[in-house]
Amino acid sequence: MNVFVIGKIIGIALGIEAALMVLPLMFTLYYGEKALPFLIPMAVGAVLCFILTRTGRRDNKLMSKEGFVSTGLTWIVMSLVGMLPFMICGAVTNPFDAFFETVSGFTTTGSSILTDIEALPKGVLVWRSFTHWIGGMGILVFMSAIMHFGNGSQMNLIKAESPGPVVSKLLPKAGDTARILYIIYTGLTLITLGALLILKMPFYDALCITFGAAGTGGFGVLNSSCADYTTAQQVVITVAMMAFGINFSFYFLLLFKKFSQAFHMEEVWLYSGIILTAIALISIDLMVHNGADSPFMTIHNAAFHVGSIMTTTGFAIDDINKWPHLSQGIIVVLMLCGACAGSTGGGFKVSRLLLMFKAFVRDLALQLHPYMIKKVHYEGKVIDEKIIKTTGIYTFIYCIVMIVSVLLIAPEGKDWSTTITSVIATFNNIGPGIGINGTTGNYESFSNFSKLVLSADMLIGRLEIFPILALFRKETWRRF
Amino acid sequence: MNVFVIGKIIGIALGIEAALMVLPLMFTLYYGEKALPFLIPMAVGAVLCFILTRTGRRDNKLMSKEGFVSTGLTWIVMSLVGMLPFMICGAVTNPFDAFFETVSGFTTTGSSILTDIEALPKGVLVWRSFTHWIGGMGILVFMSAIMHFGNGSQMNLIKAESPGPVVSKLLPKAGDTARILYIIYTGLTLITLGALLILKMPFYDALCITFGAAGTGGFGVLNSSCADYTTAQQVVITVAMMAFGINFSFYFLLLFKKFSQAFHMEEVWLYSGIILTAIALISIDLMVHNGADSPFMTIHNAAFHVGSIMTTTGFAIDDINKWPHLSQGIIVVLMLCGACAGSTGGGFKVSRLLLMFKAFVRDLALQLHPYMIKKVHYEGKVIDEKIIKTTGIYTFIYCIVMIVSVLLIAPEGKDWSTTITSVIATFNNIGPGIGINGTTGNYESFSNFSKLVLSADMLIGRLEIFPILALFRKETWRRF
Repeated sequence: MNVFVIGKIIGIALGIEAALMVLPLMFTLYYGEKALPFLIPMAVGAVLCFILTRTGRRDNKLMSKEGFVSTGLTWIVMSLVGMLPFMICGAVTNPFDAFFETVSGFTTTGSSILTDIEALPKGVLVWRSFTHWIGGMGILVFMSAIMHFGNGSQMNLIKAESPGPVVSKLLPKAGDTARILYIIYTGLTLITLGALLILKMPFYDALCITFGAAGTGGFGVLNSSCADYTTAQQVVITVAMMAFGINFSFYFLLLFKKFSQAFHMEEVWLYSGIILTAIALISIDLMVHNGADSPFMTIHNAAFHVGSIMTTTGFAIDDINKWPHLSQGIIVVLMLCGACAGSTGGGFKVSRLLLMFKAFVRDLALQLHPYMIKKVHYEGKVIDEKIIKTTGIYTFIYCIVMIVSVLLIAPEGKDWSTTITSVIATFNNIGPGIGINGTTGNYESFSNFSKLVLSADMLIGRLEIFPILALFRKETWRRF
Repeated sequence: MNVFVIGKIIGIALGIEAALMVLPLMFTLYYGEKALPFLIPMAVGAVLCFILTRTGRRDNKLMSKEGFVSTGLTWIVMSLVGMLPFMICGAVTNPFDAFFETVSGFTTTGSSILTDIEALPKGVLVWRSFTHWIGGMGILVFMSAIMHFGNGSQMNLIKAESPGPVVSKLLPKAGDTARILYIIYTGLTLITLGALLILKMPFYDALCITFGAAGTGGFGVLNSSCADYTTAQQVVITVAMMAFGINFSFYFLLLFKKFSQAFHMEEVWLYSGIILTAIALISIDLMVHNGADSPFMTIHNAAFHVGSIMTTTGFAIDDINKWPHLSQGIIVVLMLCGACAGSTGGGFKVSRLLLMFKAFVRDLALQLHPYMIKKVHYEGKVIDEKIIKTTGIYTFIYCIVMIVSVLLIAPEGKDWSTTITSVIATFNNIGPGIGINGTTGNYESFSNFSKLVLSADMLIGRLEIFPILALFRKETWRRF
């Protein structure tokens, strides 16, 4: 294994992280807060970057293996440096808490261990939300957009970091694909920010909420999450969350005026269908059980949370713990379902759901007529049977990771709803669950061990299992 | 579709069912109870058998499709006739309850809606337990053992009714395979019965408990399930349950003196390993939390329930609702895991677990080294990639069925533990869950709609999804 190129990539990532800390530092200086929480990690990042990129070797070639390993390691090391502002400002004293909060940020989960968010310095809160934006599209995709490693090498990085069963190479060159993704991402982010500013949200709130929505993260700046914003602002956030959960190929096709292809994307149709069905069912259920609100506000409430959970963002305007059972059940199913592949959202992904469902229908037919020949079509193409096989294996290990995690958390003795949804909510990068970890609660009361397990779940979930599990393979470390 | 052969199979199955009712009828007469609860369904079965086997057509050929459809329909119709004794004796007045109880019997689930089991006539209770024995190996496998349809046709029936990813044809002729399976089944049943009689369990109890253990069902004859039996009797039941959860190929190999092959069965090793690990973990957890019992009794308690749940039987000697969290979590994981393929047990099956885990390890290696060629070996053979694919699809639809069922049950408003474990316990043919449906509880308080959903889950789970879902396919009913 080429450990030098892995070291180099981690080094560059830390350098970029240090540079990105300039944004929260500006807020720190503007609000007259202490600058040290950012100056120290920036120095650490810069020094490590300097050391790791000076290894002398000039061989930048990255195979699949190095792509996976460097992706897994980069995310862990970035979280270790990214947690320093929380520790140095004194807001978080337990390193497990700080690591949890930072991993939660980068992986766009949004699960928090903070009981009083508003007590933190504003600069640190900007950093906290900014990590969502950085992690949403991925730092290695960003690196591929601004640097050049050779086309194949860059594609191996993008593949390891991007979610979904098939990574669509939008343009022939990996660097161009990464650039166009970041252009779309930045464009949509600016539109969201503009809309919130027009609706008179303060700039500081608007920026942090936009970062949270764009990365489908979910960290807010108020203890009440989004409940204290105006209805109009909440509607903008709802639309933004849903927009960032759509496969970015859709926007790419729109950008290049391929409207017919864009509006024939099966994944986007199913994604929209699930969202509308869930909003309808939850609205009816809420009206039947807690009929106090007006129909408009009930639908608004349902739409906000369906958008928030389906896209794995995790913002809230209501206490889901108080919702009726069917609505809670639908919310948990949306958690498992997740957003579109190729979006900033997490979860199992709508595309996998669609692919496996089609494969099942085909398989049912094949069981009844064993000699029939029938292919699975997806997005207008015949799907390679290998993709169905690997998606099936992914489904299996996806369940196993959650089951093992639940067993590891179970000795805590928390109620089952909290235990199970804490794993579902972190592994699928959502944020709040149902129980102590609900929309008005947090993860503070978990033990350090459980926090470490849930932090690992967030990383495993964001990177779609393989890059993190590859680190635990004996063979990965053989033959340097 | 050849509807005549399907009708014929259903007819013969009903005839066999009527004949099998002679056993409970004998107990009815011996205890001086009313005979009508059996005479009426026997007459119904006989008449339907007469009508359905007189269709005139002599074409007995069964394709895959007819195999699946007749399996699905036979199980439903047999349950409809099998529920009559419960209704006619007056013990159960709600037809949804009677259907639930009978399906629970045939599918070897053992979930009950009865609040006072001991109040039922003894003949009816023998029938209730006997349904476990009939359903354990399957009525269509039985039919294949005693009749002749042509080799291919019989194999299609056995395939549709037998659990597991691969149906091993033990002998070249399907009829011989079915016969040897029933010989092993009957032999082990008699050994269990003998052991219980030697330990002075009353014949009536011993017979019913043996039926429950052999079919991995779980219906008892006492309200306390197995808690009132002696420790020695409970140990025999523990061993018996574990024995019936082993792949019958193992006994087949022993019978033909292929000891080396038998003791190299990977599935049996993993099955034993999981059982021992679970017993160890639960014993420690129980000792730490409720340290009142002696170490022997704690291990005995743990072993009984691990055996009971892993094999999907569902007998109990303790109230699992009072167990600590980790132990409860392990129990739920065992529920999902299930017994060996080719046994009378239900669940996901150890073989699928092993196969998918191996496929994942291979896939992880392939992701890192895309050009490597690596096959999956299982039980000493290279596994066809198609089996991995279909097992992956099975994993997916297995999860989807449970998720949809939970959503259908959720509006009941029962606590989440009860809601979720009621689906897990019925779909995997176990019996009790954790909550209202726990080892000391029952399913009586569910609505009729929920009981119907759970009944469907039991059938879908026992027949491994395809035969029941095939009935809901539009194409299945096209072109007679």
